[in-house]
Amino acid sequence: MLRATTAILFALATTAQAQDAPIIQDAEFYILMAQHAAQWAEDDAAVDAKLSEFQDANAGKPPNIINILIDDMGYGDMGIPELNAVRGYSTPNINAFSDEAMRMARMYTEPSCTPTRVAMMTGRLPVRMGMGDTAVDIAGFGLPAGEVTLPEVLSEAGYATIHVGKWHMGDIAEAMPQNQGFDWAAFPVHQQGQLTIFNDDAIEEQVAVGMDDFDPRFSLDMFFRPDASAMVTGLEASRGELAREVHMEPGERWNTAKYDAMNQRYQDQALEKLGELAAGEQPFFLQYWPLLPLHNTRTGRDGFKSPNGGLYVDKMQQLDAWLGDLFAEMETLGVADNTIVVLMGDNGHFTKYSPQSGFTPMVFRGGKGDTTEGGIRVDAFVRWPNMIEADGIVNDIVHVSDMYTTLARFAGADDYIPRDRLVDGVDQSALLLEGETKGRRDSLIVYSINSPQAVIKEHLKLEVPKPGENPIGANFYDIFRDTHELYPVSTEIGAWGGQEFVRILGRHMMRKKVFPDTEPARGVPYDGIENLRPETQAAVDAFLLKQEAVVAPYPDGLGPLGKLKLKKTMEADK
Amino acid sequence: MLRATTAILFALATTAQAQDAPIIQDAEFYILMAQHAAQWAEDDAAVDAKLSEFQDANAGKPPNIINILIDDMGYGDMGIPELNAVRGYSTPNINAFSDEAMRMARMYTEPSCTPTRVAMMTGRLPVRMGMGDTAVDIAGFGLPAGEVTLPEVLSEAGYATIHVGKWHMGDIAEAMPQNQGFDWAAFPVHQQGQLTIFNDDAIEEQVAVGMDDFDPRFSLDMFFRPDASAMVTGLEASRGELAREVHMEPGERWNTAKYDAMNQRYQDQALEKLGELAAGEQPFFLQYWPLLPLHNTRTGRDGFKSPNGGLYVDKMQQLDAWLGDLFAEMETLGVADNTIVVLMGDNGHFTKYSPQSGFTPMVFRGGKGDTTEGGIRVDAFVRWPNMIEADGIVNDIVHVSDMYTTLARFAGADDYIPRDRLVDGVDQSALLLEGETKGRRDSLIVYSINSPQAVIKEHLKLEVPKPGENPIGANFYDIFRDTHELYPVSTEIGAWGGQEFVRILGRHMMRKKVFPDTEPARGVPYDGIENLRPETQAAVDAFLLKQEAVVAPYPDGLGPLGKLKLKKTMEADK
Repeated sequence: MLRATTAILFALATTAQAQDAPIIQDAEFYILMAQHAAQWAEDDAAVDAKLSEFQDANAGKPPNIINILIDDMGYGDMGIPELNAVRGYSTPNINAFSDEAMRMARMYTEPSCTPTRVAMMTGRLPVRMGMGDTAVDIAGFGLPAGEVTLPEVLSEAGYATIHVGKWHMGDIAEAMPQNQGFDWAAFPVHQQGQLTIFNDDAIEEQVAVGMDDFDPRFSLDMFFRPDASAMVTGLEASRGELAREVHMEPGERWNTAKYDAMNQRYQDQALEKLGELAAGEQPFFLQYWPLLPLHNTRTGRDGFKSPNGGLYVDKMQQLDAWLGDLFAEMETLGVADNTIVVLMGDNGHFTKYSPQSGFTPMVFRGGKGDTTEGGIRVDAFVRWPNMIEADGIVNDIVHVSDMYTTLARFAGADDYIPRDRLVDGVDQSALLLEGETKGRRDSLIVYSINSPQAVIKEHLKLEVPKPGENPIGANFYDIFRDTHELYPVSTEIGAWGGQEFVRILGRHMMRKKVFPDTEPARGVPYDGIENLRPETQAAVDAFLLKQEAVVAPYPDGLGPLGKLKLKKTMEADK
Repeated sequence: MLRATTAILFALATTAQAQDAPIIQDAEFYILMAQHAAQWAEDDAAVDAKLSEFQDANAGKPPNIINILIDDMGYGDMGIPELNAVRGYSTPNINAFSDEAMRMARMYTEPSCTPTRVAMMTGRLPVRMGMGDTAVDIAGFGLPAGEVTLPEVLSEAGYATIHVGKWHMGDIAEAMPQNQGFDWAAFPVHQQGQLTIFNDDAIEEQVAVGMDDFDPRFSLDMFFRPDASAMVTGLEASRGELAREVHMEPGERWNTAKYDAMNQRYQDQALEKLGELAAGEQPFFLQYWPLLPLHNTRTGRDGFKSPNGGLYVDKMQQLDAWLGDLFAEMETLGVADNTIVVLMGDNGHFTKYSPQSGFTPMVFRGGKGDTTEGGIRVDAFVRWPNMIEADGIVNDIVHVSDMYTTLARFAGADDYIPRDRLVDGVDQSALLLEGETKGRRDSLIVYSINSPQAVIKEHLKLEVPKPGENPIGANFYDIFRDTHELYPVSTEIGAWGGQEFVRILGRHMMRKKVFPDTEPARGVPYDGIENLRPETQAAVDAFLLKQEAVVAPYPDGLGPLGKLKLKKTMEADK
């Protein structure tokens, strides 16, 4: 069997060893370090003092961490009541939370779900392991086992780790959360494209044109359109064990009601697991990555929740209520003060569903998939009572990968960050604990999948020239003065800036010769799931047949799966 | 003399008589009134009770009013620290003020300085008296004496009235503030185009291309380019008296230093007059319309005031400090609690000076001159301690003309609003005192000069079809879901909405047959100024010569001024 021949070959990543060697970073870090080493040492001492003070007051334990990542939210949609009004909706619980938290006003993510999540989990640019792309159906690739994830780092330091909700880093076993550092996880193996767009209600409502409205007599390829119901839906799994699909029986169809139930289940599980973790002895890392606000159907809608009335916006109010419940539960359980809460968006709006979603770009231009600020700037907050300034704002550049390094440091787990590879995430502890201007990054390379699209340094942003274009003519933007990147200022700064910015990119590319990019892990989709439904197995077979096609023809014209399909077709034709 | 033949013919407007007849409004008002008369009566009773309660506690006097209008600010630039951070600057005093005030989140202005100011002063759409246009140099027209302004209404009710700062409603005597209801006024007769763009420093810095860089041998028309130094600059005047130009001697050149001094003077005068008014017996109306943040030169710049560093943005921080001083002085003088403070922008950003200004559109699309939301939505606050909810937000539609009617009501002066003409401003007292959803307007006709460009109702906005276009194909926008008006939703609402919106516009136009639009007042520029400099007189003569040209030729080829010019030219050639 083909599945057998490509059987699970990964092992739990165990490369992390406590060590004193410095973390290996990208080139620009060392340029800043050369200029600020003395100040950084001083700031680090202050950070260390605060961290051990906290630990002393917390029965010797490092802080718990709750990490909430919200899908496809544009900048300004969370924590600013005035902009809630502009949109015609309100998120009172998130706004109240933001009053207790530090806003990282220049948090940059990657331009889409998968790469942002990969950067947060690995502390590395997704391009480094080929994870810049975002798959929407069965794809047979994912996050390599060799990556050392944040939950793996925290596990080494004694944390209990739980993941609930969206994961979206691959449909092969080694990429799944139970094999990437989590003690337990509940998650849909794909994302909301499957769950809200390919599903039967959404097709009926014409959310996605082309799913079911082509004359079937002309459909030669029965494997062309994904079927949400055949794809694996929600999984649950314990560390290193086989995963199990839940709440989906053979032959059952996926629809809006099941999506709503899944969301409610994740909310319930987040609260339930919080209770268990709070009752335990270990410090904990609870990752709750909701699927809402993404929601694409009117089916089952019971009235408007906001003057805006958009499908995503109304669900954002639902999510706000749920997060309010979570924050209240933290109080009830007595863990509000010794738990760091990270709350942020993963990338800009999904503008394909504007304006029926209710969300469109507002403060910045562009959305998900774009490398303008609207694609990669998100609302981002960290709350840590008495440690991080409440209702504060820091305007230093932060990249989502920095959260990996920074949270590891807060957890006293930074020694477990691997020293055998380049880590992009820089330690922003001093920024969060000591305040604005203490950031350790003033630049960023912005990728779209595997192609650098922009270089940001300070308030300036260069659109990377296309091959053959002279950098002196490239578009520069001042993103303080021109949040929508509409007025290039080349005449003012292009003359000196263009070449300097290209040098930043050049150093980044040169360093890849020392630490080359690698490929994502590839394998049989859904490997490691113990209860595949027959229709799911058929979909996997179709996927593998398509893979065979790229190496066809076999000596006798068809590969093993092609022959199987041919046999079935001939039987059906009888 | 031509000037003598067109001598001042106006009288102070005295049409306002206390009366019980209802204010005459536009058509849509009556449609809403028919549906909500009972509720409105109830709300009015609650408003009346609160207003008399206030007056009883305030020694029988109505509240003082300070009316601050800031030039060319985009939505979100005031009162939102998170967006300050996005821009890289901060306005802590305005932000603190906004925490004490009610934000009118859907305040609409007109798309430019003059029409917005006219709407606020008259309570009427500027198109009704031909004041939709914005003049930048000598123009010989202005606000007619027959308009009954807010300060005239308040004067009738016993208020002391002072205006300091930008006025910009005409360069003829009857249009000036001392002839439009103010006891005293200090103001530049033109605007910042003259003061910051035409001036010698700005020309040197190439702020305005074309001012002084054309080979003079080919300049046949010496009157083509405006000369900031020849135009009248700052005036001061008492009610009904001749105005006097101040701080400008014959032959003196206008420059950045003089502009800076003028701004400082207005700030000082605002504080000084506040002191005098606070010491008086009358309730007062102090109007302070700063020229800042507009500032176009680097001359005299003493370091950066913000990470943004834009010329307007740095001056916005200056203005913020000044407003902080004003608010503090109110406390010192003991008038903070019995004074209504209105603070708002007059229209969107002046995008012609992006990004060197430091400001560009952010939350909405477009700027000054545009009828997209970016041109006509502004930050707007009203503070009235213990009367209007602090740190509140109301999301009902408000038009700047509504402030006329509303402030008159708060002052107990609404009986002096004229009943012989259509007033566009509706009374929003209930909205401000009783809260969100109590607004009395759900629609607005958006004009550009004299042409309707858009119709807004609820959250929907129709781009008015061009002549010959079928409304069924016109662009509709949902401005909650699509703040940048980029995604027309015609397919969703065009089929029923297009015609309905055109009917709103139709009713507005039909009502003009009953209350027709009139012309602005026209006259000799600078009439009523007692100390015109010789170069100013020459500029007026040139203006009048150009006016003669449109009725040329006279029987003998030249009019009186043409002959004068010819004589002077021939003498100079000798």
